[in-house]
Amino acid sequence: MTKVAFLGLGAMGSAMVPNLLKAGFAVAVHNRTREKAAPLLHLGATWAESPAQAARGAGFAVTMLSDDSALSGVCRGPEGLLEGLGAGVPHLSMSTVSPLLVEALAEEHRRRGSVLLGSPVFGRPDAAAAARLWICLSGPAEARRRAMPPLQAMGQKVFEFGEDPAAAHLVKLCGNFLLASAVEAMSEAFVLGQKRGIPRASLHELFSSTIFPGPVHQGYGARVAGDAHQPAGFKLSLGLKDVSLALAEARRAEVPMPMASLCANQLLAGLAKGRGEMDLSALVLEAADNAGLGGA
Amino acid sequence: MTKVAFLGLGAMGSAMVPNLLKAGFAVAVHNRTREKAAPLLHLGATWAESPAQAARGAGFAVTMLSDDSALSGVCRGPEGLLEGLGAGVPHLSMSTVSPLLVEALAEEHRRRGSVLLGSPVFGRPDAAAAARLWICLSGPAEARRRAMPPLQAMGQKVFEFGEDPAAAHLVKLCGNFLLASAVEAMSEAFVLGQKRGIPRASLHELFSSTIFPGPVHQGYGARVAGDAHQPAGFKLSLGLKDVSLALAEARRAEVPMPMASLCANQLLAGLAKGRGEMDLSALVLEAADNAGLGGA
Amino acid sequence: MTKVAFLGLGAMGSAMVPNLLKAGFAVAVHNRTREKAAPLLHLGATWAESPAQAARGAGFAVTMLSDDSALSGVCRGPEGLLEGLGAGVPHLSMSTVSPLLVEALAEEHRRRGSVLLGSPVFGRPDAAAAARLWICLSGPAEARRRAMPPLQAMGQKVFEFGEDPAAAHLVKLCGNFLLASAVEAMSEAFVLGQKRGIPRASLHELFSSTIFPGPVHQGYGARVAGDAHQPAGFKLSLGLKDVSLALAEARRAEVPMPMASLCANQLLAGLAKGRGEMDLSALVLEAADNAGLGGA
Amino acid sequence: MTKVAFLGLGAMGSAMVPNLLKAGFAVAVHNRTREKAAPLLHLGATWAESPAQAARGAGFAVTMLSDDSALSGVCRGPEGLLEGLGAGVPHLSMSTVSPLLVEALAEEHRRRGSVLLGSPVFGRPDAAAAARLWICLSGPAEARRRAMPPLQAMGQKVFEFGEDPAAAHLVKLCGNFLLASAVEAMSEAFVLGQKRGIPRASLHELFSSTIFPGPVHQGYGARVAGDAHQPAGFKLSLGLKDVSLALAEARRAEVPMPMASLCANQLLAGLAKGRGEMDLSALVLEAADNAGLGGA
Repeated sequence: MTKVAFLGLGAMGSAMVPNLLKAGFAVAVHNRTREKAAPLLHLGATWAESPAQAARGAGFAVTMLSDDSALSGVCRGPEGLLEGLGAGVPHLSMSTVSPLLVEALAEEHRRRGSVLLGSPVFGRPDAAAAARLWICLSGPAEARRRAMPPLQAMGQKVFEFGEDPAAAHLVKLCGNFLLASAVEAMSEAFVLGQKRGIPRASLHELFSSTIFPGPVHQGYGARVAGDAHQPAGFKLSLGLKDVSLALAEARRAEVPMPMASLCANQLLAGLAKGRGEMDLSALVLEAADNAGLGGA
Repeated sequence: MTKVAFLGLGAMGSAMVPNLLKAGFAVAVHNRTREKAAPLLHLGATWAESPAQAARGAGFAVTMLSDDSALSGVCRGPEGLLEGLGAGVPHLSMSTVSPLLVEALAEEHRRRGSVLLGSPVFGRPDAAAAARLWICLSGPAEARRRAMPPLQAMGQKVFEFGEDPAAAHLVKLCGNFLLASAVEAMSEAFVLGQKRGIPRASLHELFSSTIFPGPVHQGYGARVAGDAHQPAGFKLSLGLKDVSLALAEARRAEVPMPMASLCANQLLAGLAKGRGEMDLSALVLEAADNAGLGGA
Repeated sequence: MTKVAFLGLGAMGSAMVPNLLKAGFAVAVHNRTREKAAPLLHLGATWAESPAQAARGAGFAVTMLSDDSALSGVCRGPEGLLEGLGAGVPHLSMSTVSPLLVEALAEEHRRRGSVLLGSPVFGRPDAAAAARLWICLSGPAEARRRAMPPLQAMGQKVFEFGEDPAAAHLVKLCGNFLLASAVEAMSEAFVLGQKRGIPRASLHELFSSTIFPGPVHQGYGARVAGDAHQPAGFKLSLGLKDVSLALAEARRAEVPMPMASLCANQLLAGLAKGRGEMDLSALVLEAADNAGLGGA
Repeated sequence: MTKVAFLGLGAMGSAMVPNLLKAGFAVAVHNRTREKAAPLLHLGATWAESPAQAARGAGFAVTMLSDDSALSGVCRGPEGLLEGLGAGVPHLSMSTVSPLLVEALAEEHRRRGSVLLGSPVFGRPDAAAAARLWICLSGPAEARRRAMPPLQAMGQKVFEFGEDPAAAHLVKLCGNFLLASAVEAMSEAFVLGQKRGIPRASLHELFSSTIFPGPVHQGYGARVAGDAHQPAGFKLSLGLKDVSLALAEARRAEVPMPMASLCANQLLAGLAKGRGEMDLSALVLEAADNAGLGGA
């Protein structure tokens, strides 16, 4: 029975571990706060006292953490993941983090003989629980091939992006930029309609059932239409973080992205007005404010 | 047998008339150039020497023309549509035109006793031929009710937007703005990926099969990914026209639309560089130029 | 004694007429509301019952009106300026209006034998009173030469822009765009400073006495620094009008102007929030709102 | 005779040192490449083998370096400036660097007993040679008071910005953002004029002698008008660096700066097209490219 080290038991990680257990993996979990592990221990996971301990003897490691700082903390240090990973063992980096950090970590893995794979995901906790995640994968080909069984236990489809582990992470940032720009576009259009007497909900019904039928326009669109920004599914402040990371990559790659800049500025206005904990859909409040409909 | 006057036999109109004939309507057609009518006369349509003549005795009139100037020309003047329309007869305005013109024409209809209905559509010529158009409808309720049979003969679904005939036309402009913004967003993301070694086609495959599965991201996305901008499905110059009309409405309604402005400027750059006859997807050439990938 | 017909007695026109009188011209004035003329009649001007009457026998006509609609109204119609202007008489168009209207009016003048000269100005009413206006001049060379005496009576310097009467008007719009963009730039910088504890006034003092010493950065900058937006010197709503006219010209000329679009959107937000009657400097309220410093 | 340690002998530093010598200071210089020091040693400066050696016994230290990395390198390490600075000695940080770095260095100075003063400047090498720099100053009040004699030897005026050493550096970034935005605004306006047949030089003459008479509109404006981008006075790539640093501060302070974002994207396009070594004025090439005038 192959052991998987799983680091990060937030809403996503907690939904993914049971699918690894179901698929027959032995899963050793570690988390900053131990309480989160309880339901998983019930299902058969085991507790590890540190990332390094979780990694010892594992055939794979998985990280699903909130940001660069958390991922760096889990990987580095005397009891960090890198200490425990065996030779050739793939570490599946599934968090949404910066390609820059991933590049640095990939080099640190190489030096110690383990392998970092970029493998961030699209999908919310309910998709994670249903093993319906879409997974972006990049890194050394042999490691990618070996990582398929655990990835297939967690997702519905794997999309591959070549040899550079940072590539899949860049793809994830592109996706979140596309998401933010779709929300901003709907916000502008819906507020224009509203000021001309057309209910936002009518526009949402039209577009999300015809030319934009996917989950972004349906789900975020419904929030935009109904001003339903709390509780957040995906926080506005995290949207800003991801668009900002995309812009940092754009700067490195010398690619002007005016639409990403525009989204970043609208998100920053939301943050400045205290809307960071609201859903990304709260972008529409900026459009409404600027159209003189504020008060919301 | 109810007579329908049909004005405008471009790619869209020519695909719509047969569906009216099939549904049992008598269709009198008129067009600036008569040759376009020949295949339809074969199917049973009759030729009218002018819009007014087409309209005499008709239970409905339909206009499907290229722009404001064409619609104004067909409606007004001594042999214009308004001369021939009987009392209470609905005129279905299905072109993509400015709400401003529609407001003026609606008033002219009212003064003469006929009724203007805003009824622009989403869908390309193939959808028109298959009677699969999505139709946006607004105008006086009683006329809307009466217009359902011909509309249902041409489309798969009718979305209603209240009493103001201009409303449905504004909705259509919103849709074309959403379309342009989706193409611009993909353009920026795909070029960022490209400069980091990720094929545009890989990004397109991912996004159009997961979080953005609709026809816009699939169809235009494939053109963006493959730099397949000719022949145009929807011309860049027409995209600019529509986004500009949306911005004119935004100005009237006092709604800042920074994303629409951004799209308008990118489209204008395309026009200035001689790309107006290319598909809207040629927006990606601006992104590529600005990232130093141009040959231009 | 050469007669000048002067149309438009707002703050600018009322300050300019005395300088023509001082220079020895006979001035016939007409205005929508007659009361404005009283102080000028005292100084020796004569009242005309219509633009046409003012123009009869005049060697020059001057228009200094608020917008396109006012200029069109004064020129056209049975008692309009064009009716009264003699053969070869130059009409100095000094208002801030659209090049499009000027092109049309220039053609109407040509057809009737008179000559339109574009001659808009930079400078506020106090500069007008002191005959210190900067005048932009364009139109047929011979008429420009002949118009120098009245222009020099009203301004400190004349800048020439060729044969096309619309050119000088385009130059004026460019100037007002540069003005709006300078105000927006100061607004962003001053609000950034403010949130980091640097008084706006300190930034204003630095920049307006070093690298940006001119009247725009000094005058508007002081208003931005002190949130002194009322009473308006130059209304925000007029700033929006002029930047919008510049964008319309940009569209015609196929020149993307993203900074002008940005200014237009910020100005439109101000208008939507009820700030249209404030000074252009109220742009800083948008920057403050978006940084979470609004009371809104 | 008070000793000044001077680190950084680029075009600016080399022009400033003679003024310190003239004012009666003993100046110990150090530079990455020693050759740059030769002319100054001739004038009476002495060579130091390291920043630390230069600082030993000095009453002041001055750094005038190219960027964050150079400043960090000079300050830190076993032979860095911090090693040599005596208790209470003010270090005048005159480079254009990030407030973030300055905050960190200020804390390192405090821990060792020396004092960091933010004191970046406006002015080009010729102004430095003439002791005509404008100096922005911030930091602990007592140190600011003591630093006046060397600052007055180098500049024409000192503007003070309070107790936080990072503040003056933020002010400098604001100034460079204002500069970039003025160049972008002129670029858009001049290209619009050009496409309508108005020479760029005519617009430049008008604006730089009337409402925008300062050195920015005169100097950069002349380059924009004449497409005179080489050799660079202030490199486009450095303009991008500074606007990017301003945006990083804006992000930290939660201040959306859409105009700064726009400038950054235009500058980045210039960089991507290989124009990074040209003058900042090369922004106009982006405007020209986007208007279909490329080829330049």
